[in-house]
Amino acid sequence: MTIKVQDVMNRLMGQAGSPAASVDGIVAGDGDAAVRGIAVAFIASHDVIVRAAELGANLLITHEGVFYSHHETGPGPLGDSLVVQGKLERIHSVGMNIYRLHDAPHRTEPDVITDGLVKVLGWNDLLEKHLPTAAVVVLPEGMTVRGIADYIKDRLHVPYVRAAGSLDTVCKRIGIAVGYRGGGQHAIPLFEHEGLDMLIAGEGPEWETPEYVADAAAQGRDQTLMLLGHGASEEPGMRLIADRLRDYFQEIPVHYLPARPLIHIV
Amino acid sequence: MTIKVQDVMNRLMGQAGSPAASVDGIVAGDGDAAVRGIAVAFIASHDVIVRAAELGANLLITHEGVFYSHHETGPGPLGDSLVVQGKLERIHSVGMNIYRLHDAPHRTEPDVITDGLVKVLGWNDLLEKHLPTAAVVVLPEGMTVRGIADYIKDRLHVPYVRAAGSLDTVCKRIGIAVGYRGGGQHAIPLFEHEGLDMLIAGEGPEWETPEYVADAAAQGRDQTLMLLGHGASEEPGMRLIADRLRDYFQEIPVHYLPARPLIHIV
Repeated sequence: MTIKVQDVMNRLMGQAGSPAASVDGIVAGDGDAAVRGIAVAFIASHDVIVRAAELGANLLITHEGVFYSHHETGPGPLGDSLVVQGKLERIHSVGMNIYRLHDAPHRTEPDVITDGLVKVLGWNDLLEKHLPTAAVVVLPEGMTVRGIADYIKDRLHVPYVRAAGSLDTVCKRIGIAVGYRGGGQHAIPLFEHEGLDMLIAGEGPEWETPEYVADAAAQGRDQTLMLLGHGASEEPGMRLIADRLRDYFQEIPVHYLPARPLIHIV
Repeated sequence: MTIKVQDVMNRLMGQAGSPAASVDGIVAGDGDAAVRGIAVAFIASHDVIVRAAELGANLLITHEGVFYSHHETGPGPLGDSLVVQGKLERIHSVGMNIYRLHDAPHRTEPDVITDGLVKVLGWNDLLEKHLPTAAVVVLPEGMTVRGIADYIKDRLHVPYVRAAGSLDTVCKRIGIAVGYRGGGQHAIPLFEHEGLDMLIAGEGPEWETPEYVADAAAQGRDQTLMLLGHGASEEPGMRLIADRLRDYFQEIPVHYLPARPLIHIV
């Protein structure tokens, strides 16, 4: 039986379908294309598109998009970019269908992407609750920021994390957020309403939450922030999506393609 | 003769006055207050407010604001934050007047904040041109990304920079942008229209310009990005403002207060 791109997405989405007012949908290709293989990744980078094609996949499901902009519906104002044009040519030459799956997993209960991070950190048994945009875990003995950093680097296979606040602070109540949820409007109320010792997030503007944490420290409040990187925080959730697809479509090869290191510390 | 807060700002702004539709203006205190001492800093952090008061300053001129949000006109939705309340109490108890000076220096020709960074990097003689939101410098012999990183860390006294692209790429044409100008909508056209080998910026969302640079590399185009940190990129420009104030008001002590390390790599 031929399975089409849209069949895969319908199965993944269930009766809810694609969420309204979302950035989700087909970014390249055709919902009627017959699926020969599926690749799942954090972002549809040029490298990921090439690797997916080499593996025989012609459906690439990614959390973030193709054209370097969250609200993209196409290349938009970057349409004359040589890199964008080179990428579009490659997408067409390999016949890749690309589906952006962003808002649907973030809007489930619990958020699949947050849930993936909690699980890969091995903290599911320490989960106190899932909030719409974060989870709260409680480490019974507490760990220092430095200790948590080492633990996370080992679990996520990342070479570094970024941290604000004192590295010696012992943290028990930890908020887990993903992606761009490190920004102040999201993070600051979360710190105070949930009494967090640490918020873990992907990224966020530097002079919002990091400055808040520094100000808290200057006032004698031991709050800390740990930024894992946008991709590192969201890859585990996309791996869960790949696992689900393997269950749903046992006759189609499903590959998870990890991102390669993006930002180096020098 | 008594010099008031508003007198200082009028002298700094000249006939142009504060720019319209800007975030600039008095964030705390009173334009009629008599100025006893001036402190200049990147951001009005709790620590900076305390240090300024200890130095006898009662006018603090900062590039970024008090309440962790670019478009702030007050604490806004963060008004019930304990940290915000603690900061407001300290501002009042030390009698600090705070003026946010952001858009005015960015909108001069050349942008004072960009100009400050070019000068502190010692690249003023290598300047090809100032654009409205960036400068272009040309290193005649070229330098590797790694070499430029070491050079910049030494000049700016920062412990690390972040880089995307190959660290061995030799760069000649370099764009210099500051603050949040590392985002894709700004950076990507600049790379291509100016034929840049490297863009230096403060910060920007991770899956915009870093992913663009990675895609360019996957297509055989050697473009690179270096992120200095928002504060590190804009402090030199604020030092120029402090220098200018020292010239204008020789009877008033003027202090530049460098930021303390904010985000640690672990």
